[in-house]
Amino acid sequence: MFTDSLAISEIIAVGSELLLGGRVDTNSIFLSESLAGHGIEVRFKSVVGDDIEDIGVAVTNAAKRTKLVLITGGLGPTVDDVTREAVARVTGIPLRLRPRALESIKTRLQSAGRTVSESQRRQAFLPAGAVLLRNPAGIAPGFAVQWKRCRIFCLPGVSHEVRGMWTESVLPMLRREGILSPAIETRTIQAFGLLESEIDNRLKGIMPATSPFRLGLLASPLGVSVSLTRSRTTERRQAGKKNSRQSAMSLDDLMNDVIAKLGQHVFSIDGQTMEEVVGQRLRARRSTIALAESCTGGLIAHRLTQVPGSSTYVDRGVVCYGNRAKMELLGVPESLLKKYGAVSAQVAKAMAQGIRTRSKADVGLSITGIAGPGGGTAHKPVGLVYVGLATSMGTSTKAFRFHGEREAIKLRSSQAALDVLRRWLCDSFLDEA
Amino acid sequence: MFTDSLAISEIIAVGSELLLGGRVDTNSIFLSESLAGHGIEVRFKSVVGDDIEDIGVAVTNAAKRTKLVLITGGLGPTVDDVTREAVARVTGIPLRLRPRALESIKTRLQSAGRTVSESQRRQAFLPAGAVLLRNPAGIAPGFAVQWKRCRIFCLPGVSHEVRGMWTESVLPMLRREGILSPAIETRTIQAFGLLESEIDNRLKGIMPATSPFRLGLLASPLGVSVSLTRSRTTERRQAGKKNSRQSAMSLDDLMNDVIAKLGQHVFSIDGQTMEEVVGQRLRARRSTIALAESCTGGLIAHRLTQVPGSSTYVDRGVVCYGNRAKMELLGVPESLLKKYGAVSAQVAKAMAQGIRTRSKADVGLSITGIAGPGGGTAHKPVGLVYVGLATSMGTSTKAFRFHGEREAIKLRSSQAALDVLRRWLCDSFLDEA
Repeated sequence: MFTDSLAISEIIAVGSELLLGGRVDTNSIFLSESLAGHGIEVRFKSVVGDDIEDIGVAVTNAAKRTKLVLITGGLGPTVDDVTREAVARVTGIPLRLRPRALESIKTRLQSAGRTVSESQRRQAFLPAGAVLLRNPAGIAPGFAVQWKRCRIFCLPGVSHEVRGMWTESVLPMLRREGILSPAIETRTIQAFGLLESEIDNRLKGIMPATSPFRLGLLASPLGVSVSLTRSRTTERRQAGKKNSRQSAMSLDDLMNDVIAKLGQHVFSIDGQTMEEVVGQRLRARRSTIALAESCTGGLIAHRLTQVPGSSTYVDRGVVCYGNRAKMELLGVPESLLKKYGAVSAQVAKAMAQGIRTRSKADVGLSITGIAGPGGGTAHKPVGLVYVGLATSMGTSTKAFRFHGEREAIKLRSSQAALDVLRRWLCDSFLDEA
Repeated sequence: MFTDSLAISEIIAVGSELLLGGRVDTNSIFLSESLAGHGIEVRFKSVVGDDIEDIGVAVTNAAKRTKLVLITGGLGPTVDDVTREAVARVTGIPLRLRPRALESIKTRLQSAGRTVSESQRRQAFLPAGAVLLRNPAGIAPGFAVQWKRCRIFCLPGVSHEVRGMWTESVLPMLRREGILSPAIETRTIQAFGLLESEIDNRLKGIMPATSPFRLGLLASPLGVSVSLTRSRTTERRQAGKKNSRQSAMSLDDLMNDVIAKLGQHVFSIDGQTMEEVVGQRLRARRSTIALAESCTGGLIAHRLTQVPGSSTYVDRGVVCYGNRAKMELLGVPESLLKKYGAVSAQVAKAMAQGIRTRSKADVGLSITGIAGPGGGTAHKPVGLVYVGLATSMGTSTKAFRFHGEREAIKLRSSQAALDVLRRWLCDSFLDEA
C-alpha cells in the first residue's frame, strides 16, 4: 500500500498552540511547497501537541509509511519542548550532550551579551550519532537521525529559523544524497471572474480519470486556483491500467489546454499574485498609478506595495471613507454625492478622474462600495461595489456584487479592482503592439 | 495511553492541494478554535490527499484514538472527491442513495436554474444509516456515522460551508448529546514590544512543571502571544503526582499574574486584535483618526478598516511613497525632506501634523521607513522606521528597527504604529479620568 520511494515524505508539526486554532502552521506550508518543487510528495501531515507520547505515536506511524519525516517545533529551552526526548524515546537512541551544539548556543548568546542558562543547556542534548543542523537564525540546533529505514529531521518551530535551516542544511543534505528530483511536478493556474462550477464545466472532459495527472480546483476570495499535478503514486497506480490514452501528454500541454478554456480570466501561472502581475505590467510600460479607495480601506495600496520595488510605479493612494474626504482629497462634486450617493458608478468615475488629475499619475484606480455588515439597503445591498479606471484613453466603471463577510468582501473587491486594471493593461498593450 | 473521554477529538483535512503548500487549511483552524471554546481538546490533526486508501488509514488511526472525528473535504461532485467512498470502505457501511439528500441538491440547483448532473447525483450517496447534515451554504450534504465507539462527522471543504454546517447542525447535535462542556479552558494574552526570550525571563517561576496548566509562547510580527491552557489530559496525568501546589489556582489567577509581569506591553486578551483594541478606544472617546503612511503602504488603514463600524472613527488615510506626494498631500516642507531625508523623525512629525491639520481629525498617525529589500544605507538600514503621533496635546515620534523580509517589516511597522497610538489612548484616558 505504501510505496518504497524516498520521494514520499511526511510532516509532523509539534505545538499545542497549533491545536487550539488561531494559529496557522506556516512551517508545513513552506516545507510542502519546497518539497513539491523538488519532486518530493508529502503524503501525510500531522499536528500534535507538546506531549512526549503523542509525538512518539506520530513519529512511529510516519516512520512506518515513509522514509523521510520532517518534524518542526519542540526544540526550545522550556519544559514544554519535548521533541528531543520524544524522538530519543521512540527510537531508543539516548540523548547525549553535544559539545559542538553547546558551543554554538554559547556563541549565539554571547553576541547578545548573555550566558547559557540551565534550560538553554538542554537544547544541546541530542540523540547519539545525530547529524547536527546549524540554526542560522536562532539558538535551537536541529538534528537528523536515521531510524530503521527512515530519515528523521527535527527542525525548530520558529518560522524564519525553519526556513534558514531548511535552505542551508537540509536541502543540501537531501541533494547530496540524491533524494531531490529536479522535475517540477505541479503547475497552478489562477483565474478571476468565473465561479468554481463554471470552471468545472469548462474543463469537463479535458482529462480522463485514468490520466497520470491530478486536477484540483480551489476557490478563495482571490479567485479559483486550478492545480495540475503529476503524482508519482497516481502514476504508478495507473500504470497497470488500460485506457491511459493521454499518457503522452505533458503537464505543460495540459496547462495550455486549461488556459485556452479559461481565456482572459486567467491572471497568473504558478503562484504569481495579482499584485505582482499588475506591478510587472505597470513597470514594463513605465506607468505610474494612483489609488482612491473607499470600501477597501487601503487594502489595494497595501497589496500593491507588498511587491518589492513597487515604489517605482505606485505614486500615491488615498483612503476616503467619508464624503468630506472624497470632496477634499479627490474633488468629487458634492452634487454628485447627493444625487447618486457615494456608492455609485458616477462617484467611482469622479474618484478615478480626481486622483489621476491631482496626482498626475498615468492611471487612476478607484473603488467605492459597501463592505458591511452595516450600511446596506434594499437598493444598494452589502457587497455592491463600483470600480473606476481613469487613463489617457478615458474613464470606465464596472459594477460588482460580492457576498460574504466584511473581510472577504474587502479582499474580493480589491482583487476585482486589480483585475479591471490588469485587463486594461493587457488590452492596451495589445492596442499599442 | 489514550483516554476514554469524548472531550478529545481529532481532525482530518482531506485535499491534495493542502499537501502542496500555498494553501492554509483554515477549516481545521476554525474547528479547533470552536472545539477549544467548547471544552473539547483536539489531540491530533492530519492532512491527507484525495486518496481512498490514505483517507482510510487516517480514519482508522483516528477512530482508535478518539471518539470524535471531524473530516473536512472530499464531498464534492468530482472524481477526486472520495471521502464518502473512503468512509464507506473503512467502516464497512455501504453507500446508499439518500432521497432526502438528492432532494436538497435538486432544490439548491433549481434556485440557480440548473438541473442535477450525474456527477452531482453522486453527492447524494451516503453511508447507510448516516445522519444527514444540511449544507446551508452549498450543495454537498454532510453526514455523521457511528463506527464502533467513534462518531465520525464528514463536512465539506469549502470554508463558509463548513462554518454554516458546523454551527447549524454539528454543534447542536453535540450539545444535545451532552458532549460540549461550557468551561472555557484557554486564555490568551498578547504583548508587543518585548522579545519572546524577555517574556520567557519575566515569566520564569510563575508556573511549576507540575501545575495542571500549560503556558505557551508564540512569536509573530504582531508580537508575542502567551497562551494559558488547562489541558484535561495534563490534569489527569498530573493528578497522581505530588507537589501540585498550585492546583487551587484558577486559570484567571494565572492570567492576572502574567499580565502583572508584562505590564503595559499587554495589548489584548483572548484574541482581540490590535486594530480592534485601538478602534474600541477611539470609539469610546468619540475621536477620529487620519493616517499618513509611507513604508506600510496602506496596511494601517486596511487593518483599521477591517473592523466593522470603523467608518465612524477612520476619517481618511493617505499613502505617500514619494516626496512629491508627501509635499502635496501633507504639506511636508521640501527643506525638511532635503535636510533630514524622507525617513527621519522630523519628516514623521511633519507628516503626522500635516494629516491632522488638513483632515481636521482628532489624531494624526504617520509612518515612514524602509521596508526593503532595496533602499537601505549604512546610516539608514532596511527596517528603520519612524512613527509620528499628532494630537491636541502635541506631536511625538518614536524610532524602531525591525528585521526580516518586506512583508514582515510592513506588518511589524503597522503594529508598532498602532501600538504607539494604543499607548497614547491608554495614557490620555488615564489623564482625563
